[in-house]
Amino acid sequence: MDNKKSSKYEVVRWMMVFVIGVTVGLVGLFVDFFVHLFTRIKFSVVGSSIEKCTDKGCLSLSLLELLSFNVIFVFIASLLVLIEPVAAGSGIPEIKSYLNGIKIPGIVRLRTFLCKAAGVLFSVSGGLFVGKEGPMIHSGAIVGAGLPQFQSISFKRIKFDFPYFRSDRDKRDFVSAGAAAGVAAAFGAPIGGTLFSLEEGSSFWNQALTWKVLFCSMSATFTLNFFRSGINFNKWGSFQLPGLLNFGEFKCPDGDKNCHLWTAVDLAFFVLMGVVGGLLGALFNCINKCLAKYRIRHIHPKAKFVRVLESLLVSMVTTVVIFGASILLGECRDLYSPAAHNSSLASSEDINSTIRQFFCSNRTYNDMATLFFNPQEAAIHQLFHQDSTFSPVTLSVFFLLYFLLACWTYGVSVPSGLFVPSLLCGAAFGRLVANILKVNMGLDIYSGTFALIGAAAFLGGVVRMTISLTVILIESTNEITYGLPIMITLMVAKWTGDFFNKGIYDIHIQLKGVPLLEWETEVEMDKLTASDIMEPNLTYVYPHTRVQSLVSILRTTVYHAFPVVTENRQNERDFMKGNILISNNIRFKKSSVMTRAGEQRRRCQSMKSYPSSELRNVCDEQSAVEEPTEEGEDMLQQMLERRHVPYPNLYPDQSPSDEWTMEERFRPLTFHGLILRSQLVNLLIRGVCYSENQSSASQPRLSYAEMTEDYPRYPDIHDLDLSLLNPRMIVDVTPYMNTSPYTVSPNTRISQVFNLFRTMGLRHLPVVNAVGEIVGIITRHNLTHEFLVTKLRQHYITI
Amino acid sequence: MDNKKSSKYEVVRWMMVFVIGVTVGLVGLFVDFFVHLFTRIKFSVVGSSIEKCTDKGCLSLSLLELLSFNVIFVFIASLLVLIEPVAAGSGIPEIKSYLNGIKIPGIVRLRTFLCKAAGVLFSVSGGLFVGKEGPMIHSGAIVGAGLPQFQSISFKRIKFDFPYFRSDRDKRDFVSAGAAAGVAAAFGAPIGGTLFSLEEGSSFWNQALTWKVLFCSMSATFTLNFFRSGINFNKWGSFQLPGLLNFGEFKCPDGDKNCHLWTAVDLAFFVLMGVVGGLLGALFNCINKCLAKYRIRHIHPKAKFVRVLESLLVSMVTTVVIFGASILLGECRDLYSPAAHNSSLASSEDINSTIRQFFCSNRTYNDMATLFFNPQEAAIHQLFHQDSTFSPVTLSVFFLLYFLLACWTYGVSVPSGLFVPSLLCGAAFGRLVANILKVNMGLDIYSGTFALIGAAAFLGGVVRMTISLTVILIESTNEITYGLPIMITLMVAKWTGDFFNKGIYDIHIQLKGVPLLEWETEVEMDKLTASDIMEPNLTYVYPHTRVQSLVSILRTTVYHAFPVVTENRQNERDFMKGNILISNNIRFKKSSVMTRAGEQRRRCQSMKSYPSSELRNVCDEQSAVEEPTEEGEDMLQQMLERRHVPYPNLYPDQSPSDEWTMEERFRPLTFHGLILRSQLVNLLIRGVCYSENQSSASQPRLSYAEMTEDYPRYPDIHDLDLSLLNPRMIVDVTPYMNTSPYTVSPNTRISQVFNLFRTMGLRHLPVVNAVGEIVGIITRHNLTHEFLVTKLRQHYITI
Repeated sequence: MDNKKSSKYEVVRWMMVFVIGVTVGLVGLFVDFFVHLFTRIKFSVVGSSIEKCTDKGCLSLSLLELLSFNVIFVFIASLLVLIEPVAAGSGIPEIKSYLNGIKIPGIVRLRTFLCKAAGVLFSVSGGLFVGKEGPMIHSGAIVGAGLPQFQSISFKRIKFDFPYFRSDRDKRDFVSAGAAAGVAAAFGAPIGGTLFSLEEGSSFWNQALTWKVLFCSMSATFTLNFFRSGINFNKWGSFQLPGLLNFGEFKCPDGDKNCHLWTAVDLAFFVLMGVVGGLLGALFNCINKCLAKYRIRHIHPKAKFVRVLESLLVSMVTTVVIFGASILLGECRDLYSPAAHNSSLASSEDINSTIRQFFCSNRTYNDMATLFFNPQEAAIHQLFHQDSTFSPVTLSVFFLLYFLLACWTYGVSVPSGLFVPSLLCGAAFGRLVANILKVNMGLDIYSGTFALIGAAAFLGGVVRMTISLTVILIESTNEITYGLPIMITLMVAKWTGDFFNKGIYDIHIQLKGVPLLEWETEVEMDKLTASDIMEPNLTYVYPHTRVQSLVSILRTTVYHAFPVVTENRQNERDFMKGNILISNNIRFKKSSVMTRAGEQRRRCQSMKSYPSSELRNVCDEQSAVEEPTEEGEDMLQQMLERRHVPYPNLYPDQSPSDEWTMEERFRPLTFHGLILRSQLVNLLIRGVCYSENQSSASQPRLSYAEMTEDYPRYPDIHDLDLSLLNPRMIVDVTPYMNTSPYTVSPNTRISQVFNLFRTMGLRHLPVVNAVGEIVGIITRHNLTHEFLVTKLRQHYITI
Repeated sequence: MDNKKSSKYEVVRWMMVFVIGVTVGLVGLFVDFFVHLFTRIKFSVVGSSIEKCTDKGCLSLSLLELLSFNVIFVFIASLLVLIEPVAAGSGIPEIKSYLNGIKIPGIVRLRTFLCKAAGVLFSVSGGLFVGKEGPMIHSGAIVGAGLPQFQSISFKRIKFDFPYFRSDRDKRDFVSAGAAAGVAAAFGAPIGGTLFSLEEGSSFWNQALTWKVLFCSMSATFTLNFFRSGINFNKWGSFQLPGLLNFGEFKCPDGDKNCHLWTAVDLAFFVLMGVVGGLLGALFNCINKCLAKYRIRHIHPKAKFVRVLESLLVSMVTTVVIFGASILLGECRDLYSPAAHNSSLASSEDINSTIRQFFCSNRTYNDMATLFFNPQEAAIHQLFHQDSTFSPVTLSVFFLLYFLLACWTYGVSVPSGLFVPSLLCGAAFGRLVANILKVNMGLDIYSGTFALIGAAAFLGGVVRMTISLTVILIESTNEITYGLPIMITLMVAKWTGDFFNKGIYDIHIQLKGVPLLEWETEVEMDKLTASDIMEPNLTYVYPHTRVQSLVSILRTTVYHAFPVVTENRQNERDFMKGNILISNNIRFKKSSVMTRAGEQRRRCQSMKSYPSSELRNVCDEQSAVEEPTEEGEDMLQQMLERRHVPYPNLYPDQSPSDEWTMEERFRPLTFHGLILRSQLVNLLIRGVCYSENQSSASQPRLSYAEMTEDYPRYPDIHDLDLSLLNPRMIVDVTPYMNTSPYTVSPNTRISQVFNLFRTMGLRHLPVVNAVGEIVGIITRHNLTHEFLVTKLRQHYITI
């Protein structure tokens, strides 16, 4: 039902992804513009105050200024998160879960978007050690989810009559496009963004979708590029500034023929740095996990303003630390003169514009303040490209402080990304390694490369992403030759980190209790089969069911889908009573089974009018055989043969009750299809049923549009006014059920079940035995790692 | 069976992809080195001869020299293709088919590899308008297929005892890694290579595999890079030369602040160029298709040396044309002095080293000769980066000649890629557009960008690749800001071209009659269901079958898999005769059906020893009910009740015969599993069977290693020595069959069937009805576009 496409839709889809891309680009522009504005104002006010006060000795006043700026900004960010709590954090765990197939309430709503986009602006401006990349990705995903719906649930006024793309699959596709656009805008990495959405969201390689996602990412990147080039350089129409986060150009000075960005020898150091990055990342994750657990246990149960207080505390501590560290621990170092080296390097001018001379005499600069009193992106640029050195002590102290504060900050209730803090932290580590190798060991290396690799190693150790992160970093450096070192570093960092714990996003997903499905199951799990893990206690409906049974089933269970079954007894007819429901159900069963003989008959009949050669023979032969009219006879016979034989609960006027014996509870059921809860509720609400003395053909039919009108929030059964229903009426669910869902046989290996479930994005997978009886059902819950491990343990105990 | 992995395998896998990557890199190095060497020798000999003869008037001698060089080289290439005919052409259609799941004989053999790698070297050196990229990709794929096998079929001596990775799935994974490495080595585009193998081969997004493929690509790129930097610059350990094909650096002169590589306005021109590129590409494909058809009809049936003659003819015509065009149509233009503009541009020196001054006076150069008397890569560099102009006439003539000759050449029986000729052709077109815009309309544009976009447009119009081509071109330019223009151009070119015909690779695949599966089916096909397209005439085996029946089935059919079935008659027992086969089969059927009640009983029994809380209740309840021993009883009863009732062919001592009535032919069959032809032959050869008066437990068991020993060439049934077999023995196939293949119900929509088939990489998909009877089987053949269209037409006629 949901993958019907037409070429008209296709054009609309392309337009849609373009619009999503452009919108995400504009959102990025908005966030970037205001972050820049606020940060500039803050640092210029505080900076001039510090310069004045260094002599006058009124530094506490400067600190107070900085404190008030930061606390106010963070307070606003925190308030926004109070309005919409899911706007906290980076949003990547939530998007990852969403793309994995789990609906978290409110995750893609307009209100979340507004709180997130505005919140991250203030949390970044407020000097917290947070990035804007994660929230950008989340915002992008919301834009993707929301725009094609042309309506908003948060704001009821926003509603156009545009009833397309009202299915989970379509929505998911647009969300992945939006998330990719978010990455693309954040890092200027359209290919990386596409791979991100594939890595996190895709189950199968959908050529057409991937092509659209790439286009969406490109649109986002270049929209941002266009406007930033226009606004910053007043060169409208040129495209000079790629993503929000840009690593600058790594290149050797033009004259120096012996300079290499990296050599084969360096690779050995990169591997070691990868190991260290993995260890540091694992430590970061471990500390953060403990903090998160502490928060869940001690802070979340308390009043909401406690979270705001925590944010403010973090903000204050951060402010005091950067101020104190700059005064007390910064070193005054000679300013490197670009003129002495190479005058044509335009970029070194940019670099030096962000140097801070606080507390230092003329022609020297404070290296600690240079890192702390700048936007984080500028600090990363400093570590990557500043030819002047940072002292090893400064780098170590900076790394340590940053590590601890960033770790504390991630999880505080403000929108907070993790990419930029990790990169900055790692860059400091890498630069430190470069310093040691260059100064202490006298190696001829390019410091910027080491800083970059350090950044990659630490980031890789924290987030444990693989393909997409590699490509994002390559694209951010705009230097394809960094491919190998970045990839090797990330690989080593991931392997090292995985030895200790999971990636930070997975940790947070786990803490939230989300049943995420992994990429594949472990080999060991193949000792189990589908029948070991399925849910054998079924709640089912019959093709023709009374309204009262349906209501009772819907009200007493929480399942999202119900198998449609008929009784499967060899002596079925003996049990038949004069009840139209039974005969309907049995008739349905008879007519729904296509047999080879029946199919062949049908074909022969149609073939006679069709001039084909080969099948003629078979058909003629068939004609010779006496035409069996078994099926037609059957139905007639059933109608005639009806006798009253009592059989308990043969028709589901009630759901499987507790009084049933085992025999009744587990009697064989032939499987015919799946029907969703939302569909059943919809049928009940719209009064789709027929009365006992009529034929089921008299039941009104609903169109596809009517069935999906309420997407994505279908009405609940408990909202239903029961007084409007006639409990004795009968609902024929057969026109609406999915008659051919994917099924597995009970002895299917887990890996195969998992593969089918994950790849096809299923929610319910019936387990059907060799004679077509349903024996159980598998849902996402039955395939989570925890559940499988439990079952495997049981398996070992049993044997 | 084939997706069992262990962590030990995992490490071997990583090592394997690394080795594949390095090997592919070395192959690329080998080809590149010798192409360079031969080309340099050729052009220096001929060049000096021309310079001498320009005054003396002995140009025909120079032509003769060039002719003899080219003809000899092409002759060698052509001979190599005679040895192994599948080595002809680019190899991309073959790899595409292979990754799509079709086995073309000899496509991944060592002999093919040797002929291809050596052949492309000579065909490129021979001055044909062919590229080495396609053959590189094919070579990479063969390396991927062959290395992990540690044996060779072409050369029997090469055989190590390394029995891993002997499955189609593993082999396919390594082939896709190798193909990706080929792309990576050819273009210096590891990400593009990975996406290429995803685009062409993947059905579902396999995270672990993709990560390995990327690593493989990186290894290839940087191996090549390492050795080329070492050999060409003598700088071992630096990585300065990316792929074999490199577009050079696009950049504005340092001083010029108003120069932009491209602006928003240019995008409009790019779209137009995309349209034109698409049209030209469609024309190219159309002409080439006609030629290919002509070749199939008139050249291929003739003696093989005719193909060699055609290659030589093409070579001679090409040589004469480039010689004649350079003399007659080249313009002498002023040499642009790099010193006047900017001295620091090291690259302009490289550019000018490939300028040809043939037939021209001092300080001028022959623009036509510059394009023709250079390796194609150098000509592309000229068109992309030469600041001096080419005359519009030269560009037009060059484009036209190149277009026609390249079109003629592709399909000749030499290894021949298509990328570089298309790029060169398109670059000439783009440069022509740039000339017109710049000189005639006075626009301030960057010519190189237009040449690049022209190249992209034409290449896109010919091959119609999307995502991977975009990324390959972005990586080849090493300039992320070209992302948007390249993508838009390729999109427009593809859409325009698709209006007329398919991409060149798809055309050649179609001409070869390969049943390639598309990405998805058309919407219209959903009018059909699985039962409309399935093959209803089944050849099946029973769980216990006589050797004579198996042999007869295997000898009279060509199917690769057989459903394992049992008869499904309500009055089955009545027909039972005193035959162990029947009772075995029916016993199998009874015991293989897991019912809900049976499962629940089993669980309860095992649960009693297991201290769980919730299920206790159910179990206790169960204990109260009298334990039904239905199943046990059944079997006993069957053994006892056996009576002799004649029923024709109830057991398959022979395959379904022509004398059967329709009733017999289409009697209901319960489906139990699938068994492969190769498995059956293997069982027969190894004598896995039991005699009538023994139990099936006495049958010897084969291990997994024994079953797969002969991979990938399993013995044929016709090689079997029948005299060694006892025809009355019985084979129990149940331990070897796949008991839980994916199945679909008869009324499944085609799109869903297609999706399952394509995504899971199936070869046989049984169609099973609601009561577990097999009604048909779907293979690749039933899902090809042509077959579906035929069926749809029938469907329309019938209704």
